[in-house]
Amino acid sequence: MSSYSSKWIKVSEPVPHVLLIELSRAPVNAFCTEFWVAYGKLFDALTADGYDVRAAVLTSAFPKYFTAGLDLHDASALGSSGADTSLDAARASHSTRKHLLAFQHAIGAPERAPFPVIAAIHGHCIGLGVDMIGVCDIRYAAKDTKFTIKEVDIGLAPDIGSLAFLPKITGNHSLVRELTYTARGFSADEAREFGLVSRVVEGGRDEVVREALALATFVAGKSPVAVSSAKHLITHSRDHSVPENLAYTGAWNAAALMTNDIRDGLLATAKKEKPRFASLTVQTKLPKL
Amino acid sequence: MSSYSSKWIKVSEPVPHVLLIELSRAPVNAFCTEFWVAYGKLFDALTADGYDVRAAVLTSAFPKYFTAGLDLHDASALGSSGADTSLDAARASHSTRKHLLAFQHAIGAPERAPFPVIAAIHGHCIGLGVDMIGVCDIRYAAKDTKFTIKEVDIGLAPDIGSLAFLPKITGNHSLVRELTYTARGFSADEAREFGLVSRVVEGGRDEVVREALALATFVAGKSPVAVSSAKHLITHSRDHSVPENLAYTGAWNAAALMTNDIRDGLLATAKKEKPRFASLTVQTKLPKL
Amino acid sequence: MSSYSSKWIKVSEPVPHVLLIELSRAPVNAFCTEFWVAYGKLFDALTADGYDVRAAVLTSAFPKYFTAGLDLHDASALGSSGADTSLDAARASHSTRKHLLAFQHAIGAPERAPFPVIAAIHGHCIGLGVDMIGVCDIRYAAKDTKFTIKEVDIGLAPDIGSLAFLPKITGNHSLVRELTYTARGFSADEAREFGLVSRVVEGGRDEVVREALALATFVAGKSPVAVSSAKHLITHSRDHSVPENLAYTGAWNAAALMTNDIRDGLLATAKKEKPRFASLTVQTKLPKL
Amino acid sequence: MSSYSSKWIKVSEPVPHVLLIELSRAPVNAFCTEFWVAYGKLFDALTADGYDVRAAVLTSAFPKYFTAGLDLHDASALGSSGADTSLDAARASHSTRKHLLAFQHAIGAPERAPFPVIAAIHGHCIGLGVDMIGVCDIRYAAKDTKFTIKEVDIGLAPDIGSLAFLPKITGNHSLVRELTYTARGFSADEAREFGLVSRVVEGGRDEVVREALALATFVAGKSPVAVSSAKHLITHSRDHSVPENLAYTGAWNAAALMTNDIRDGLLATAKKEKPRFASLTVQTKLPKL
Amino acid sequence: MSSYSSKWIKVSEPVPHVLLIELSRAPVNAFCTEFWVAYGKLFDALTADGYDVRAAVLTSAFPKYFTAGLDLHDASALGSSGADTSLDAARASHSTRKHLLAFQHAIGAPERAPFPVIAAIHGHCIGLGVDMIGVCDIRYAAKDTKFTIKEVDIGLAPDIGSLAFLPKITGNHSLVRELTYTARGFSADEAREFGLVSRVVEGGRDEVVREALALATFVAGKSPVAVSSAKHLITHSRDHSVPENLAYTGAWNAAALMTNDIRDGLLATAKKEKPRFASLTVQTKLPKL
Amino acid sequence: MSSYSSKWIKVSEPVPHVLLIELSRAPVNAFCTEFWVAYGKLFDALTADGYDVRAAVLTSAFPKYFTAGLDLHDASALGSSGADTSLDAARASHSTRKHLLAFQHAIGAPERAPFPVIAAIHGHCIGLGVDMIGVCDIRYAAKDTKFTIKEVDIGLAPDIGSLAFLPKITGNHSLVRELTYTARGFSADEAREFGLVSRVVEGGRDEVVREALALATFVAGKSPVAVSSAKHLITHSRDHSVPENLAYTGAWNAAALMTNDIRDGLLATAKKEKPRFASLTVQTKLPKL
Repeated sequence: MSSYSSKWIKVSEPVPHVLLIELSRAPVNAFCTEFWVAYGKLFDALTADGYDVRAAVLTSAFPKYFTAGLDLHDASALGSSGADTSLDAARASHSTRKHLLAFQHAIGAPERAPFPVIAAIHGHCIGLGVDMIGVCDIRYAAKDTKFTIKEVDIGLAPDIGSLAFLPKITGNHSLVRELTYTARGFSADEAREFGLVSRVVEGGRDEVVREALALATFVAGKSPVAVSSAKHLITHSRDHSVPENLAYTGAWNAAALMTNDIRDGLLATAKKEKPRFASLTVQTKLPKL
Repeated sequence: MSSYSSKWIKVSEPVPHVLLIELSRAPVNAFCTEFWVAYGKLFDALTADGYDVRAAVLTSAFPKYFTAGLDLHDASALGSSGADTSLDAARASHSTRKHLLAFQHAIGAPERAPFPVIAAIHGHCIGLGVDMIGVCDIRYAAKDTKFTIKEVDIGLAPDIGSLAFLPKITGNHSLVRELTYTARGFSADEAREFGLVSRVVEGGRDEVVREALALATFVAGKSPVAVSSAKHLITHSRDHSVPENLAYTGAWNAAALMTNDIRDGLLATAKKEKPRFASLTVQTKLPKL
Repeated sequence: MSSYSSKWIKVSEPVPHVLLIELSRAPVNAFCTEFWVAYGKLFDALTADGYDVRAAVLTSAFPKYFTAGLDLHDASALGSSGADTSLDAARASHSTRKHLLAFQHAIGAPERAPFPVIAAIHGHCIGLGVDMIGVCDIRYAAKDTKFTIKEVDIGLAPDIGSLAFLPKITGNHSLVRELTYTARGFSADEAREFGLVSRVVEGGRDEVVREALALATFVAGKSPVAVSSAKHLITHSRDHSVPENLAYTGAWNAAALMTNDIRDGLLATAKKEKPRFASLTVQTKLPKL
Repeated sequence: MSSYSSKWIKVSEPVPHVLLIELSRAPVNAFCTEFWVAYGKLFDALTADGYDVRAAVLTSAFPKYFTAGLDLHDASALGSSGADTSLDAARASHSTRKHLLAFQHAIGAPERAPFPVIAAIHGHCIGLGVDMIGVCDIRYAAKDTKFTIKEVDIGLAPDIGSLAFLPKITGNHSLVRELTYTARGFSADEAREFGLVSRVVEGGRDEVVREALALATFVAGKSPVAVSSAKHLITHSRDHSVPENLAYTGAWNAAALMTNDIRDGLLATAKKEKPRFASLTVQTKLPKL
Repeated sequence: MSSYSSKWIKVSEPVPHVLLIELSRAPVNAFCTEFWVAYGKLFDALTADGYDVRAAVLTSAFPKYFTAGLDLHDASALGSSGADTSLDAARASHSTRKHLLAFQHAIGAPERAPFPVIAAIHGHCIGLGVDMIGVCDIRYAAKDTKFTIKEVDIGLAPDIGSLAFLPKITGNHSLVRELTYTARGFSADEAREFGLVSRVVEGGRDEVVREALALATFVAGKSPVAVSSAKHLITHSRDHSVPENLAYTGAWNAAALMTNDIRDGLLATAKKEKPRFASLTVQTKLPKL
Repeated sequence: MSSYSSKWIKVSEPVPHVLLIELSRAPVNAFCTEFWVAYGKLFDALTADGYDVRAAVLTSAFPKYFTAGLDLHDASALGSSGADTSLDAARASHSTRKHLLAFQHAIGAPERAPFPVIAAIHGHCIGLGVDMIGVCDIRYAAKDTKFTIKEVDIGLAPDIGSLAFLPKITGNHSLVRELTYTARGFSADEAREFGLVSRVVEGGRDEVVREALALATFVAGKSPVAVSSAKHLITHSRDHSVPENLAYTGAWNAAALMTNDIRDGLLATAKKEKPRFASLTVQTKLPKL
C-alpha cells in the first residue's frame, strides 16, 4: 500500500480494504499546486488500478490543522495571471480557467472512486479544506474543529467546490450564504446542526480518526457491489430529478442485481455467518488514461 | 369505500374525504410482487376514479411493523433472474429493468394522487418501507419507530426510491450516505433531527395514526384546488430549478386562480364560517387506462 | 439615498454602502399591485444604476407586522379575472399568467441585485411575506416572529416563490408540505430548526434589525467582487447540478480572479490593516432598460 | 396475432416478428376517445406481454386517409369541458389536463415499445396524424401524402406531441412554425426535404406499405438486443445532452454487451450465414400494470 | 400605430393586426446601443400594452442592407471596456457582462411577444443581423440575400444569440460551425438548404416583404389563442425534453382549451364562413414594468 | 511537430498552426484499445501542452479506408467480459462500463481541444468511424465515401458517441434511426443531404484532404480567441437551452471581450492588412494531469 504514498500524502491500510489517507505537508497542510495534483492522482490511481479498497478515511497528520487551505506563497496557486499585466486579458483568462478546471478535477477525485471516502476533520479546516470535504461521502468532525469558508477574505468566491456542494449537501441556504459572505469561523456543533457533518466526536484528531476508521471498517464488510452502486446512485440523485434518477437506477441495477453477492449475503444471513465478498474490480488490462 | 380494500390493504374513510390505508399482510407486511402491485393499483384507481379523497393516511395494521420490506421468499421479488444462468445476460437484464420500472411506478403512485398522503410510521420500517414513505407528502413517526435502509445488507443498492428521495427531502447528504452504506438502524428522533419526519409522536401505532388523522382531517377542510395545486407544484419544485418552477407555476395558476374557491373562502372568512368546497374532480367519463 | 424611497418604501443608508429598506404601508404592509411594483423597481433601479450598495437589510417599519401579505381589497391583487365571467376563459387565463409572471419578477428582484439582501423578520410574516424572504440571501428572525404560509386558506397555491424556494433553501420537504397544506403558523424557533432562518434574535423588530445591520456592515467591508461573485454562484448552484456549477464557476472566476482585490486584500492582511475596496460597478453610460 | 386486433385496429403478422398495424375506422380514421385508448393499449399490451415483435409498420386501411385526425363529433374528444359553464373553471381545467395527459400517454405508446415502429403514411395525414407519426421511429410517405398540422384551424395549439417532436426530429424550426401557424398542407416531397420523412415512395398506400414492410423485415433479422438498445438510446439522446447520454449509454451497454448475440453474430458472419437471434423478452410472470 | 415608431424604426399596420417593422438607420442599419435599446423596447411595449397584433414582419427600409450589424463607431457597442486599462479587470468584466445580458434581452424581445414575427431578409444580413433573425419565428429570404456570421472577423465569438439559436433551429452543426469559424458569406439558397430560412423569394426587398406580409396576413386570420399558444409551446419545446414539453403543454392547454375560439371556429367552418376572433389580450390595467 | 506522432498516428504541420493528423494502422485503421488510447492522448496532449494549433484536419493515410471501425481481433476491444462466464455478472458489468467510459473519453478528445478539428472523410467510414467524426467540428467527405453505422450488425448499439451526436448534429431523426437499425451503407451525397457532412468533394482522399486543409488554413488566420470561444460556445449550445447558453455566453465573453484581438483585427481591417494574432495559450507551468 505504501507505494501509493507520496511526498505529502501518507497512505496506509490499517484494516484490510480500509485506507487511511493522511495529509502531511508541514506545518499546516497548505496546498500548493503540486500538492493538489498529487491528491487527485492518488484517488484516480486507486480507481484506475482497481486496488481493492472498500472505504477510505481522509484526515490530516497534524492535530491542529486539517488544512489551512491554499498555499498563498505558491505563485501559481490562485491560477491568476493578474499580476502579469503584459498578458492579453482574454488569454490570461483562458489560462486561469484551464487551471481552475484542473484544480476542481483533482479535488473532485474522491467522488470518482468506487468506494466511500469519510472525512475525519479536526483542528482548522479552512478555505480549500471545505471544498475538499464537500466532495467526500461522509463527514465526521472532532469537537475541536473550526471551519472557515475563508475565500471572501482574500478577495475571491470559492471556486473549487464549496459553493457547488454546500447548498446541496446541507439544505440550509441562509446559513451557507452567511458563512460564505462573512468568512466567519464555525464550530463542529454548528456544522452538525445544519447538516455539514453527520457526527461530532468528542476530542480531537485521534478520536475522530478512530471513529471514522470504525465506520470505514464496518462499511468495508458489506458487499462492494452494493456500496459502490449506492454511492454512485446517491451522487447521481444529487444532480438529477427524481424521475431521471429512477430511470438511471433502473438501467444500473438491471446489471448490478445479477451479482452473486445477493445470494451470498442471504446465505450468510441464514447461517448467521458474516458474508465475505469478492473485490469489486475484475483484474483487467485496461490502459491507464 | 370498502370496495377499494384488497387482500392485504384495508381502506376505510373514518372521516369524510379522509382515507385510512392500512397495510395488513401478516405478520410483518413483507412485500411480494402481488402486494406492491395492489398497492400501486389502489392509489392509481383512486386517482383515475376521481373519488373525492382530500387527504390520506398510510400506516400498518400491525403495531410492531410498519413493514419489514421486501418478501425475500417471493422468487420474483428482487426482479433478478440471476439464478437462472441459462438466460442470456442482456435479456435477463432487460427483464430485470422492466421489473424495476414497474416496481418504482407502483411505489410512486401516492405522488400521482391529487391529495396529500401522510405516512404514519411506527415499529420497524425497513428497506422498501423507506422507499414507500419517501414518496409520501408528509411523514409522522411514532416514538417507537426503528428505521433501517436495509438494502446494502442483502447485496444491493436501494432502487425503488430511497436514493432518489432521501437526499432531496432531507438535505443532509452525509447522514443519508452513512445510513445507506451501513444499513444501521436509526430512531424516530434521529429521523426528525435530519428532516426525514416532521413530527415524532410519543407512543406507538395508535398515537401516530391519531395525530396523522387529525392532520389529514384538518387538511381535508381546505380547498382541494389549493391543496392539490400546492402538492403538484412542490413536487415540480423538487425536480426543477427556481426559474423553471416559477414559469410552470405561472401557467398552472393561470387556470387554477379561476376557481370559485377563492371567492367562497373569502366569503366564509368574512362571515366567520367554515367554508365548504366542492370535490376537485368533475365526474367525467374518462376511460381508465 | 433618500431619492430611492417611495410612497411605501423607506430607503436609508445608516452605514456607508449598507441600505436599510423598510416596508411601510400602514398598518400591516398589505401588498397591492402598486406596492409590489415599487418594490421590484427599487431593487432593479439600484442594480441598474450601479449605486454602490454592498449589503442591504429588508425589514418592516411596523413592529407587529413584517407583512400581512397580499392586500385582498385590491381588486387586481390576485391577478384573477375570475369574477368577470364575460371574459373568454383562455384570454382571462392569458392575462392572469402575464400578471403572475410580472409579480414573480418584481418579488424576485433582490436575487438580481449584486449585493446580499438580509431579511430582518419580526411580527407577522404572512403569505407573500414568505415568498419575499425566500428570495433573500439570508434570513434572521426576531423571537416574536409568527410565520404563516397562508395561501391555501384563501383557496390558492402560493405562486410567487414560496414553493419554488422553500424546498430548496431548507431541505425539509415533509415540513414544508405540512406548513403549506395546513397554513398553520410557526414560530421563529421552528423556522430556525428546519433551516428557514439562520438565526433567531431575542426580542422584536429593533433587535433583529440591529443584528441584521451588524451582519450587513460586516459583509460590506469585504471585497464586493468576492461577495457578489459568491452570491451569483450560490444562486447558480441552487438551480444546477454540481458539474454544471463547477463549469460555470470556472468561466466566471476566470475573469473575476483578475481583480486587484486579491492583491489588496493580501497586502492589507500582511500589514494587519483593514483593506478598502472599490465599488463593484464601473460608472458606465449603460441605458436603463 | 389476431387476438391483438380490436374494433378499429387490425393487427397481422405478414412476416414472422413483423407486425402490420392498420387503422380502420371508416371512413377516415377519425379518432374518438375509444379509438385512441385502444391504440395506446395495443402497443402497451404488446410491450407488457413480451410478444416477440421485432419491427412494426403502422398504416391505415383506407387508401385516401392515413387519418383525418380528431373526431370532432365525439363530445369528449377535445378534453374540454368549456361548453359546460356550470363547472368551476379550475375543476374543468383539472379534468382537461388529466384528459390530455392520458391522450398523450396513449399516442406515445409506440415509443415505449422495445421494437421500432415504422409509419407508412399516405393520403391525408391531418392533425392528430402528425402527432402519431412524430412518435414513431421512422417515417416513410407515399408520394400522394398530404400532411396538415390542422389544429390552429380549430382554435387550439397541437398538444398531443407534434410541437414536442417536430422541432427535435426535423431541425427546421422556421418551417415547423410556418406549417403550424398556417395549418397549410404540405406534400410528401416537402416533408422529406425538411427531414420529417426519410423516404418518399412513388405511388400510394400499397407501395409505401410494401417498402415499409421490406424495411421492417430487414430490421427484424437483426439482433433484438442491438436494435432495441439503439432505439432506447436514440430516444434518450433526443432528450438529454451529449454527456448525459454518454453516461447513460455506459450504464446501459455495461449490461447489454453481455449478450450472446455478439458472439452469434460474429460466428454467423464468419461462416457467411444469416444469424438467428432469440426473442428479446424472457418469458416472465410479470404482472400487467 | 405610428406612435410605436421611433427614430430608426418605422412601424406601420398595412393590414389590420399585421405590423410592418422597418429598420431604418441610414445607410446600413448599423446598430449602436441606442438602436438596439429602441428595438427591444418596441417589442416589449407592444407586448405589455396588449396592442392587438397577430403577426409582424421585420425587415429593413434599405434594399441593399438588412443590417450591417454592430456599429463599430459606437464606443459602447461591444460592451468592452478593454481599452480602459485603468479599470480593474474583474470590474470591467462585470460591466461587460451586464451590457451583454441587456443586449441579449433586447434582441430577444420578439420571442417574448405573443404573436409570430416573420423576418423578411434581403441584401446584406451581417453579424448582429443573424442574431436578430434567429430569434424570429419564421425566416423568408430574398434571392439576393447575402448572410455573414461576421463576428470572428472582428475577434470575437457571436454572443447575442446566433450560437444559441443556429444549432437548434437548423440542425446542421457541421455547417453552422464552418460558417461561424470562417465568417464566409452564404446565399439565400444555401440558407434554405440547411434550414435557416424556410423560403427563398425571387427578387429583393419588395418581393420578400410582399410574401412575408401575405403570410402574416394569413396567420392573422387564425385564432390568436391558438397561434400564440403554438408559438409559446414550440419555443418551450426547443429548450426542453419531450416529456417536459408534454407535461407543460398539458398544464397550458388545460386553460387554453376553455376558449370560445374552438366553438367559433367550428361554427364558422360548418357555415363555410371565415371565423372572426377577439383580441388575445384582455384590456387590463396591468402596470408596465 | 513529429514528436506528437505515434505508432499508428502521423502528425504533421503542413501549414503553420495547422495540423494534419493521419490514422495509419494498416491496412484498414482497425481500432484496438492501444490505438484509441493513443488517439485520445494525442488530442489531450496538444491541449494540455498549449501547442499553438489553430485548426486540425483528421484523415486516414489509406485511400480506401477512413477506418473499418473496431478491431474485432482485439479481445478487449468490445469491453465485454461476456465470454468469461466465471466472472460475477455485476463485476463484469462494472468493468465493462469503466472500459466504455474510457473509450468515450478518448474518442471525445477533439471536443476538448481549443481548436477546430475538421474530419476529411473518404473511402469506408464504418462503425467507430462514425462515432469519431461526430465529435469533430466540421465534416467534409470525398465523393467516394461509404458510411456504415455498423454496430447493430455485430449485436450491439453504438455506444461511443454516434447515438449521442447524430440526432443533434443532423436534425433528421427518421433517417438516423433507419441508418442505425439497418446498418446499411450510405453515400457522401446522402450524408450531405441530411446534414452529416457540410461538403462533398469530388474525388477521393487527396481531394478531400486538400479542401479540408484549405479550410483549416483559412480558419487558422482568424483570432484564436474568437475561434476557440465560438467552438466552446457552440458545443455548450448543443447541450443546453437557449436561456442557459445565453447566460453562459454572457459570463464567457465578459472575459473574452477584453482581448486585444478586437483592436488588432479592426486596425488591420482599416489598413487593409491581414491581422496577425498571438497564440491562444499563455506559456504556463501548469502540471499535466
